[in-house]
Amino acid sequence: MENRKENIYETDALVSQYCEFQYGDEYLGIENFAKVCAQKAIAYSATTPQKRALDLGCATGRASLELAKVFEYVNGVDYSQAFINVAKDIQKERCISYALNSEGAIKQCKEVCLNALGLNDVGEKVEFFQGDACDLMPLLAEYDLIMATNLIDRLYEPQLFLNTIHKRIHDEGYLVLTSPYTWMEEYTAKEFWIGGYYDSKGDEVRTLEGLKAILNDNFDLVEVEDVPFVIRETPRKYQYTLSQMSVWKRKRR
Amino acid sequence: MENRKENIYETDALVSQYCEFQYGDEYLGIENFAKVCAQKAIAYSATTPQKRALDLGCATGRASLELAKVFEYVNGVDYSQAFINVAKDIQKERCISYALNSEGAIKQCKEVCLNALGLNDVGEKVEFFQGDACDLMPLLAEYDLIMATNLIDRLYEPQLFLNTIHKRIHDEGYLVLTSPYTWMEEYTAKEFWIGGYYDSKGDEVRTLEGLKAILNDNFDLVEVEDVPFVIRETPRKYQYTLSQMSVWKRKRR
Repeated sequence: MENRKENIYETDALVSQYCEFQYGDEYLGIENFAKVCAQKAIAYSATTPQKRALDLGCATGRASLELAKVFEYVNGVDYSQAFINVAKDIQKERCISYALNSEGAIKQCKEVCLNALGLNDVGEKVEFFQGDACDLMPLLAEYDLIMATNLIDRLYEPQLFLNTIHKRIHDEGYLVLTSPYTWMEEYTAKEFWIGGYYDSKGDEVRTLEGLKAILNDNFDLVEVEDVPFVIRETPRKYQYTLSQMSVWKRKRR
Repeated sequence: MENRKENIYETDALVSQYCEFQYGDEYLGIENFAKVCAQKAIAYSATTPQKRALDLGCATGRASLELAKVFEYVNGVDYSQAFINVAKDIQKERCISYALNSEGAIKQCKEVCLNALGLNDVGEKVEFFQGDACDLMPLLAEYDLIMATNLIDRLYEPQLFLNTIHKRIHDEGYLVLTSPYTWMEEYTAKEFWIGGYYDSKGDEVRTLEGLKAILNDNFDLVEVEDVPFVIRETPRKYQYTLSQMSVWKRKRR
């Protein structure tokens, strides 16, 4: 196990937090979010081909691996190279070690392995890349499913993603979005918010309405449901979030 | 109701968040924390006089008012003048209006009133002051109970509070602390952390052990229990925290 020591990301608290979020224990009785989202996306797209999938904003890659249980080929893409490095390490080493926050500066070492998660044989079907959802590489196309979990309210200009994403999805393929719609000016200038504001008449514009306005030309809205997730900050502090999943089916051209 | 418009603290998101935390709805099935802590402190101190109580770090004052259901006189003290202003307004007007976060920049107006909380007649027994727990006014003394909820890990030098607090409590009176021990250098320089670090031998020092080392000369540790609380950030985002309550009884001089 000595050679795994180089994989301990204890200097990056956020990376460790996401390792636990995507590969670690479940808290407050809430199921693993990446796994649940992948399972839902697989179920929604079950009546269409399930060859190529893209997991946009994949973080440390758990949902990409889950999609690869069914899909023949999966891309996982994240803006953060640090996250992609972890995803690639897990894919290669099949285990990852990280330092979990305990009280104050006290850390607790933890190792998780793909075989314990039923994911030992899927890694070779996945390719991870660093990439920008607002400026995607042309090769990221021809998908049957694109999933983007908790992504749109962290993009600098989500319209750049939403206005063009239909070009990368096959006819009758699926786009699965989740977001708690936590719009913040630190991430997205207010002029680019999809919703969560008052229009010039003073009426509320909700994000789901904003998504419909953008996506309706090329997609049918198939389903909307809430999916909770929990992120552990310390043994005594958790973020509990209710993300809204919206499922969109690509219209025939 | 027109005259209450001046009490809408919609410019200060944290104040609104605390109004909801202390006077608003309960979320994720977790009971109101200020009320629960006050009830526990009242129960622990039931066999001793219940004349004078101090609620240190009282925020918008809910626990101070709850203590005043039983205690004859209560002081609520907070470092934040904005919080104390709200506490005094509620005490005077018996209602408070605030703007709750909805999606993005969308707000939802809310009013809460003391009579609906069973607190209509206790306000006159409470005095609120702005004050610094690390440098308390001399007049804050002669208490039967001092309660400090979620305070110690937000003080710049918690020892200044802990080393001297016994002087303000009657013999056999109670000190009730709660904290999730979320030590952060933004609030407390690491040299002043009570626990949550490794000592020079590399051994873990936990905060409860640090508290015992400081308080043992003047207090007996009576009880330790976990008390959860939930803070609502948006309709879709919550902080779930497990605070540790430690109950200390002042030794006879």
